[in-house]
Amino acid sequence: MTTNRLEAFSDGVMAIIITIMVLELKIPDEQTWASLIPLIPKFSSYLFSFIYVGIYWNNHHHLFQAIEKVNGKILWANLHLLFWLSLLPFATAWLGEHSLNNRPPAFLYGCILLMCAISYALLEKFAIQHEGATSKIARAIKSNLKEKISILLYLSGILCSLIYPYLSLVLYYTVTILWLVPDRRIEKQHQP
Amino acid sequence: MTTNRLEAFSDGVMAIIITIMVLELKIPDEQTWASLIPLIPKFSSYLFSFIYVGIYWNNHHHLFQAIEKVNGKILWANLHLLFWLSLLPFATAWLGEHSLNNRPPAFLYGCILLMCAISYALLEKFAIQHEGATSKIARAIKSNLKEKISILLYLSGILCSLIYPYLSLVLYYTVTILWLVPDRRIEKQHQP
Amino acid sequence: MTTNRLEAFSDGVMAIIITIMVLELKIPDEQTWASLIPLIPKFSSYLFSFIYVGIYWNNHHHLFQAIEKVNGKILWANLHLLFWLSLLPFATAWLGEHSLNNRPPAFLYGCILLMCAISYALLEKFAIQHEGATSKIARAIKSNLKEKISILLYLSGILCSLIYPYLSLVLYYTVTILWLVPDRRIEKQHQP
Amino acid sequence: MTTNRLEAFSDGVMAIIITIMVLELKIPDEQTWASLIPLIPKFSSYLFSFIYVGIYWNNHHHLFQAIEKVNGKILWANLHLLFWLSLLPFATAWLGEHSLNNRPPAFLYGCILLMCAISYALLEKFAIQHEGATSKIARAIKSNLKEKISILLYLSGILCSLIYPYLSLVLYYTVTILWLVPDRRIEKQHQP
Repeated sequence: MTTNRLEAFSDGVMAIIITIMVLELKIPDEQTWASLIPLIPKFSSYLFSFIYVGIYWNNHHHLFQAIEKVNGKILWANLHLLFWLSLLPFATAWLGEHSLNNRPPAFLYGCILLMCAISYALLEKFAIQHEGATSKIARAIKSNLKEKISILLYLSGILCSLIYPYLSLVLYYTVTILWLVPDRRIEKQHQP
Repeated sequence: MTTNRLEAFSDGVMAIIITIMVLELKIPDEQTWASLIPLIPKFSSYLFSFIYVGIYWNNHHHLFQAIEKVNGKILWANLHLLFWLSLLPFATAWLGEHSLNNRPPAFLYGCILLMCAISYALLEKFAIQHEGATSKIARAIKSNLKEKISILLYLSGILCSLIYPYLSLVLYYTVTILWLVPDRRIEKQHQP
Repeated sequence: MTTNRLEAFSDGVMAIIITIMVLELKIPDEQTWASLIPLIPKFSSYLFSFIYVGIYWNNHHHLFQAIEKVNGKILWANLHLLFWLSLLPFATAWLGEHSLNNRPPAFLYGCILLMCAISYALLEKFAIQHEGATSKIARAIKSNLKEKISILLYLSGILCSLIYPYLSLVLYYTVTILWLVPDRRIEKQHQP
Repeated sequence: MTTNRLEAFSDGVMAIIITIMVLELKIPDEQTWASLIPLIPKFSSYLFSFIYVGIYWNNHHHLFQAIEKVNGKILWANLHLLFWLSLLPFATAWLGEHSLNNRPPAFLYGCILLMCAISYALLEKFAIQHEGATSKIARAIKSNLKEKISILLYLSGILCSLIYPYLSLVLYYTVTILWLVPDRRIEKQHQP
């Protein structure tokens, strides 16, 4: 099976996820400057999650540039990733509901970010398995150090959220910066 | 006519269906752990329906891998399937509204699952008709035993929902497991 | 310019339109049979509009099978059609709000259907203009009798809605049946 | 990397943005003519923003007709554009909330339009950088006078909104008319 439809479906789901988060920015009843202030935490969490989904789309794009065929296992690993990404709008909206400095939402947000990272790592693993050890993708992703650091940072953030929620957001944010640079490992492989 | 646009449109509709179900997970007013508890039935029904739409997308993907051209009849059979799938978010949300153990929502949920199964079987039938008895798709789907067992299980579940709603959910869930394995019949045909 | 992206964008918009209409089926507060009854008009108007958007998608699909290149004028004619289609969910939901037998919603619904029909006819006209009189599409759409009858039926329905709203719905419905058969004119041209 | 997925993802996001704005047209509780009147400002702002997103889609389409390959920088410049476009439904709905003649919404609306214009100009710039000075796209977009005039008009409109909100809308609208004609610079280059 070719990767066309898997990419198209994932593009669709990620496009919807990235866009429905903005629906949580409820329009204020009044048309005054002051009525925008309570929206600041919601807007911050939206901005952060937009970047987050953007990173996943970017890496997904890079990953499937290097994959030529898929099997049932990869289809399900991809749906598994999309499932966790689909919970991001909920976690984002809850995080931004009143204050960013509350333990339960910061904890839940971290858990969902962690599950996204794990499911992405699984997808990568199955893809390498299916393509073979000498494939383009296997050569591109020799080390998954970045994935391991991310998972470690998420775990620290989740623990941290039980004491200092703000600090946990800083840890989650660090992962974002780590990944904002797209996956050069694959991009390099494309240039002969 | 080629299958490109039918696949793209179906991908779009299924991507939206799978994503809007998550909108039913309303954000709790408070940022406490306790406020998440009432969401458990909603989350369970979301998880179940996500898997469900995932299975349909998967099988749809497999089916159209083996189909080369479509006619008006197949276009409408496909829209018929999408119609019943589009009612799944409603049935899912109603099922998860208060308790999973209520008769009317379990009955309705089963009916919609049944109609999805029937419309998928029809789509398969029209595709085989159009491609011809010696086509790739006709050889791949020689027996539709799995489809028949599913429909039987749904009917049992629907009857059952009028007495023991929880048991009916178990029956519906059995069908899911039956299909979680993608349609190997078609995958095999692709390997020479 | 090729037609790929115009088709993909239109597929996306139509997929969303067809799916967001179902969001208007608000989940009843109670999990009883009786609570489904007030949803009957909403469900009827949803069913009708689903078929309606399905017809447009179908004809759009057929039309662009026969078109090979597009210009700026066709892009805007297509966006014009999508604009009127995008108002269909609003008109549908209003029609199904309380009773199907009220004048203003039946009138508005008819106007939007009429504008969709007119904008589709314009799109067809510009496409023929651009492709040339000897093109596949020009030969396929020699007569636009069906388009003219539809517009006439809509106009009658709109007038009628001011006196007998139910009757106007019957007239709108007649057009649906007229178009449910996909555009054989183009399909025939594809078979040599 | 080819441009296929970037185009598909952008099509998806823009299709959703253009469609969710219509969800802000809340269905009136009553089925009377009078109940439609309060919707007039909402409808006006929807119409305006539909045209606006339509223009961006159109120009995006023209731009990527002339681009053959993308890098990570262009992917992010594109996501940056989509971010600002995704805030348009919020700004549109707020503008149409009560009256079009209020300062804060007119100011915010202008700022978002300005950021869209700036991010589009950046995308264009990075594309030209990546394709090279002798590329199709570089020859097509020799002058970016139109972009500069637009940004100037937005800035004037934003300042103006603090005194005469209605006048600022006129200025924003002028930009729309300026761009309604698709980017002939690129279209010309396609004809040898």
